[in-house]
Amino acid sequence: MFSMDILVQKYGGTSVANPERIKNVAQRVVTAKNEGKSVVVVVSAMGDSTDDLIELAAQINGEPPAREMDMLLATGEQVTIALLAMAIKALGHDVVSLTGPQAGILTESFHGKARILDINTKRVMKELEEGKIVVVAGFQGVCREGDITTLGRGGSDTTAVALAAALKGNVCEIYTDVDGVYTTNPRLVPEASKLKAICYEEMLELASLGAQVLHPRSVELGKSYGVEIHVRSSFNYNEGTVVKEGNQLENKELVSGVAYDINVAKIALIEIPDKPGISFKIFQALADESIDVDIIVQSIGRDGRIDISFTLPRTDLRRAFDILQEKVIKQIGGKEVVFDDGVAKLSIVGAGMVSRPGVAAKMFEALAAEDINIEMISTSEIKVSCIIKDTDIEKGVKVVHKYFSLDNK
Amino acid sequence: MFSMDILVQKYGGTSVANPERIKNVAQRVVTAKNEGKSVVVVVSAMGDSTDDLIELAAQINGEPPAREMDMLLATGEQVTIALLAMAIKALGHDVVSLTGPQAGILTESFHGKARILDINTKRVMKELEEGKIVVVAGFQGVCREGDITTLGRGGSDTTAVALAAALKGNVCEIYTDVDGVYTTNPRLVPEASKLKAICYEEMLELASLGAQVLHPRSVELGKSYGVEIHVRSSFNYNEGTVVKEGNQLENKELVSGVAYDINVAKIALIEIPDKPGISFKIFQALADESIDVDIIVQSIGRDGRIDISFTLPRTDLRRAFDILQEKVIKQIGGKEVVFDDGVAKLSIVGAGMVSRPGVAAKMFEALAAEDINIEMISTSEIKVSCIIKDTDIEKGVKVVHKYFSLDNK
Repeated sequence: MFSMDILVQKYGGTSVANPERIKNVAQRVVTAKNEGKSVVVVVSAMGDSTDDLIELAAQINGEPPAREMDMLLATGEQVTIALLAMAIKALGHDVVSLTGPQAGILTESFHGKARILDINTKRVMKELEEGKIVVVAGFQGVCREGDITTLGRGGSDTTAVALAAALKGNVCEIYTDVDGVYTTNPRLVPEASKLKAICYEEMLELASLGAQVLHPRSVELGKSYGVEIHVRSSFNYNEGTVVKEGNQLENKELVSGVAYDINVAKIALIEIPDKPGISFKIFQALADESIDVDIIVQSIGRDGRIDISFTLPRTDLRRAFDILQEKVIKQIGGKEVVFDDGVAKLSIVGAGMVSRPGVAAKMFEALAAEDINIEMISTSEIKVSCIIKDTDIEKGVKVVHKYFSLDNK
Repeated sequence: MFSMDILVQKYGGTSVANPERIKNVAQRVVTAKNEGKSVVVVVSAMGDSTDDLIELAAQINGEPPAREMDMLLATGEQVTIALLAMAIKALGHDVVSLTGPQAGILTESFHGKARILDINTKRVMKELEEGKIVVVAGFQGVCREGDITTLGRGGSDTTAVALAAALKGNVCEIYTDVDGVYTTNPRLVPEASKLKAICYEEMLELASLGAQVLHPRSVELGKSYGVEIHVRSSFNYNEGTVVKEGNQLENKELVSGVAYDINVAKIALIEIPDKPGISFKIFQALADESIDVDIIVQSIGRDGRIDISFTLPRTDLRRAFDILQEKVIKQIGGKEVVFDDGVAKLSIVGAGMVSRPGVAAKMFEALAAEDINIEMISTSEIKVSCIIKDTDIEKGVKVVHKYFSLDNK
């Protein structure tokens, strides 16, 4: 076997939303091939086609079986790979499309959210060695039973990075509809600037905080297998943002980005007993209903009573409140359950803040300067998050972005 | 392994064109299951979805590679099997959908027109033995190389009959948008009556003559493996038409049906040399261009010259005429090439006419009674065809239908 310079590219749904865009992607793929690369292209379903299929299923069965949902949704990517292969062929290049199962993507049999277990690269390597461009359906695989599985949200990113790792590629290019990763949302803060590089840990924090450029699972995979992820736009030729090892980063800023999330609500359990096992009972009851809790704050006990407050996705507020009100508070005792659906989370992320005191203080100073009250605080090694009123979020993001000198010069 | 009463049902594109109709099909399938049958359901793509995919491909590549076209089109049936499985599950029955490859349908690798080589029924049998209803994607299979293939026009009928044969089922029900096979087109002749039974040979003649109820390949398969094919409507519960062995038929009529085809043109080569090898040169030149010739008539030679005329699909007339005019006639010599694109073919079909003289004469008598001129005649064991003016076809079908006492009483 000879040595190949393998490049994995991934194009998201908006990049392949119609025939014109598919032809544009074909042109980009061929350009990389002409530069001497062995190219593997991973694609998502066209535009909103996945949503259309979900809607179709909903008309037939309100709770469609997960296995059949995977059977249905997998057709979306299969349409795209066939069309992209046709477009590449029209440019005169040898090409072959492969479904997830054909590309050897073996997954768990947990339909709808399967994790990749292994990739058998035999077929892909054979096609690459014959000089073909290989187009692979993202988001899907096959379980040991021979059934089609899907990987859940962000699955195509995961397919691409996993393929790059399995094929021993060093770089995976993720093409999307934005230029790269920004210091904050440019639609909110026009002064936001594009990051040239960011480390995996920072990207993970930003991704989980609502900067929906890359799915966290793909970032974790990149970190585990040392695959650099180059996030860039399919609509221009600008350099994007490279996600890589933190120690390779030069000119490290204290803070890389300001993230925010307004799908946040707060619940507080007031004057509950201050004794062992109470927290367990509360959060196990929520976990049983698959409700994700984010920041948890416990007050200092007084007269044998404490308050516990926490944040959660606003979309889960109703369900969580009902469980606590109807069941948990009656079981454990306590004065009342209160909620606030008017909060938001503002966070700063940066590997550079590790062992650099004063970063959190500077964030609080910025918020104080705009008279913004902080309701809850949470800190980790590379992140500080504050819960504030959601009506203050735009003002908050702007002032923090400015205080940390992230505004584009 | 215990004995099972296996029933294969097939539902065409119009029967599954939208969610409502898919639910209706689910209801029918469940009814058969509740009657104690082990049910395998084969389905086509929804309504016009295959045409939509072809149109999408055309926007990207005027000559899409056949392998990628198969990859694209196979998604149509995959959508239907997932949705139908969801609909059956909603009715409370265990069900599993299988793509052609998953159902073990092994084909040639001749993309777009692959023939079934073998069916590995292991997976289907396993699911049936677990009591599940099995929904299989028609029209598709997998070749030895592991690529997805499609079976070409009428492929879902072929899948269904082949599965019935492989599973040792005795009957295959083909659900369509008509009640069964009629003595002629009921839209043209309101007096047309539905046939209770018809033999494979008659069905083959009717199918190839434009009665597009069943694809000829599925009829051939049924004949080879002794699978009775029950053609019926998915929109009512009427008994349809059973296609089976001729010797099982009672009350055999002389003529079973009157078929016609207006996609017909006639070409004549005038005063060409009357010597060996001339016919070969003419028809090989047409075969090289994949032009199907139907009826051929050669005049009696005079002065070392003959005329040869033949019919062909009207859609191929232009190409055929150009080949003969520009190449063939110059090569073999002859006076001229003339054509007529205003003809049609009218045929009577019936296994009962074997060794019963006078059937053809009665057809000619019927046509003469309406003053219809016959331009060409072709006969086989169970068929008589006449080429007449296409403007006479409606009148011709009606009078022949009446003369053979086929009008519904």
